[in-house]
Amino acid sequence: MNKPALIDVLGVGNAIVDVLAETDDAFLTKEGIAKGGMTLIDTDRAGSLYSRMPAGIEMSGGSAANTMAGIASLGGACAYIGKVAQDQLGEVFAHDIRAIGVGFDTAPLIGGQPTARCLILITPDAQRSMNTFLGASSFLSSSDLDADLIRSARVTYLEGYLFDRPEAKAAFFAAAKIAHDAGRKVSLTLSDTFCVARHHAEFTDLVKQVDILFANEGEALALTGEATFDSAVGALAAKCPTVCVTHGPKGSVIAADGKIYKVEAAPLERLVDTTGAGDLYAAGMLYGITAGLSLPTAGRIGSMAAAEAISHVGPRPQRSLRELVASISA
Amino acid sequence: MNKPALIDVLGVGNAIVDVLAETDDAFLTKEGIAKGGMTLIDTDRAGSLYSRMPAGIEMSGGSAANTMAGIASLGGACAYIGKVAQDQLGEVFAHDIRAIGVGFDTAPLIGGQPTARCLILITPDAQRSMNTFLGASSFLSSSDLDADLIRSARVTYLEGYLFDRPEAKAAFFAAAKIAHDAGRKVSLTLSDTFCVARHHAEFTDLVKQVDILFANEGEALALTGEATFDSAVGALAAKCPTVCVTHGPKGSVIAADGKIYKVEAAPLERLVDTTGAGDLYAAGMLYGITAGLSLPTAGRIGSMAAAEAISHVGPRPQRSLRELVASISA
Repeated sequence: MNKPALIDVLGVGNAIVDVLAETDDAFLTKEGIAKGGMTLIDTDRAGSLYSRMPAGIEMSGGSAANTMAGIASLGGACAYIGKVAQDQLGEVFAHDIRAIGVGFDTAPLIGGQPTARCLILITPDAQRSMNTFLGASSFLSSSDLDADLIRSARVTYLEGYLFDRPEAKAAFFAAAKIAHDAGRKVSLTLSDTFCVARHHAEFTDLVKQVDILFANEGEALALTGEATFDSAVGALAAKCPTVCVTHGPKGSVIAADGKIYKVEAAPLERLVDTTGAGDLYAAGMLYGITAGLSLPTAGRIGSMAAAEAISHVGPRPQRSLRELVASISA
Repeated sequence: MNKPALIDVLGVGNAIVDVLAETDDAFLTKEGIAKGGMTLIDTDRAGSLYSRMPAGIEMSGGSAANTMAGIASLGGACAYIGKVAQDQLGEVFAHDIRAIGVGFDTAPLIGGQPTARCLILITPDAQRSMNTFLGASSFLSSSDLDADLIRSARVTYLEGYLFDRPEAKAAFFAAAKIAHDAGRKVSLTLSDTFCVARHHAEFTDLVKQVDILFANEGEALALTGEATFDSAVGALAAKCPTVCVTHGPKGSVIAADGKIYKVEAAPLERLVDTTGAGDLYAAGMLYGITAGLSLPTAGRIGSMAAAEAISHVGPRPQRSLRELVASISA
């Protein structure tokens, strides 16, 4: 496959197909599922939870992959590295990401675990509770990293979820090193409060090597140990050149070059499903930064992209974000 | 699995997972796809069309299976017979139909073709154009028919699409015979104008053995050779005790016992995707008939169920039809 001489963003993450179903709080309680978070599940639990959950919709997902889908929809050039199996869900994932114009050439895992899936339960309050069976995705290894592709990307974007398996974690550090050695930037999203808690010491070290950091309020507090949103932003800003912390309906805060920019959330017609909100905020920010826009402008694009994602079921844009941004800015 | 002593409707059909994607008319033209119809495609065409179509959403489908989903959502007791493969899409199909309360025990096909999928292209006018790879579904055979289950159903409902493969066609006739021998009713939907054209002589014979016939305008005209909607309804009514012919936004006409009932379409907030409209109309009618409601009342429930189906992407109800009917009737 032809690769662009220079791309804006390369995402590296867990290649996952989402299974989205609407349910109620009673089901979460009965199944012992923590609302709003991401729980790793094994094969047995994936089978038993699936057998009890309502009928679903399958859609390609994966945090960094969703972000690449958003950047492509905004008009940015991007590619993705992640591991699927050679099975039907793997075909779905590969088809969908290529169909939206994201380069994807990682060789599928053969003869091992099936493609990762995330059982996402959406409650009437639009919150999503994720139960992830990592399967083939966690077998992403350093040998899957296309060094030339990493060197060709202005930003290599990594998801914190990769830290949940040793093979993938090693690939994570390898990708960051290749990018920095080529004078490129490295971006990281902390991904999940529980993920931060599971790998606290390593995240703390890693953040020092990150150029553009994404976190939500819970993740920022968990990593820094600070008591308030503002102090957590300050603590992260002391370690990273550019820090973007989302704050739910309050919008987000960007800290860079000793300055703090507050970005409002975009107006929302209706809140349906928060799946993908953080991923699409990162898409808007990274698109804006690599397009040379100011940080507040990049933040506004992030807010618009996130608002689109949460106005429907599913994590990826369902309309052209480029047109959406143009229509709002006009 | 426990089966109810008596169920309302048993559906027999092609067990299919839909892949739904939004596209434009230019894509249909370029791919030579007839808008609004169903085209059978082979493995090669399925692969090549999929590689060129936009990113999609996977949802369980299949005409008769969608109808059973609608009846279950209305509160009727139903079951389904159809053939999936032992693969991931087969698991998705089986999970989804069971999760909505429809009995499903057909043994999957092992070592043969993969689970059927239908590549559905939705154009901005909300029309769906279906490209079906029948795969495992066409290997439904007479040995898959659970005779006790057929005898336990007030109505056995068959989809005309089954006629597209000899094995499935034989199963079709066998199911109808078991039902009639047990004093039960047989219902048929003609499914598709082109399907009627492909099997014209056999459909003409079969219709004489059908108790409750479903058709849309195009199918009714194709089967009868009549020139107008009303004369086609009349010609069908001369052969079948109960005939239900849908007429798009004009609603539907029911002919039974020498009487003609006109049923208006239900009010519609927005038209998004016509996939499943006919399937859900049949669900409302069959639910009403087996619940002992009058034909006009059954028709109104059919209209409401169809309106729900076309107000969103995907063929199956996304809210409780029982609650919907109660809220409108209240």
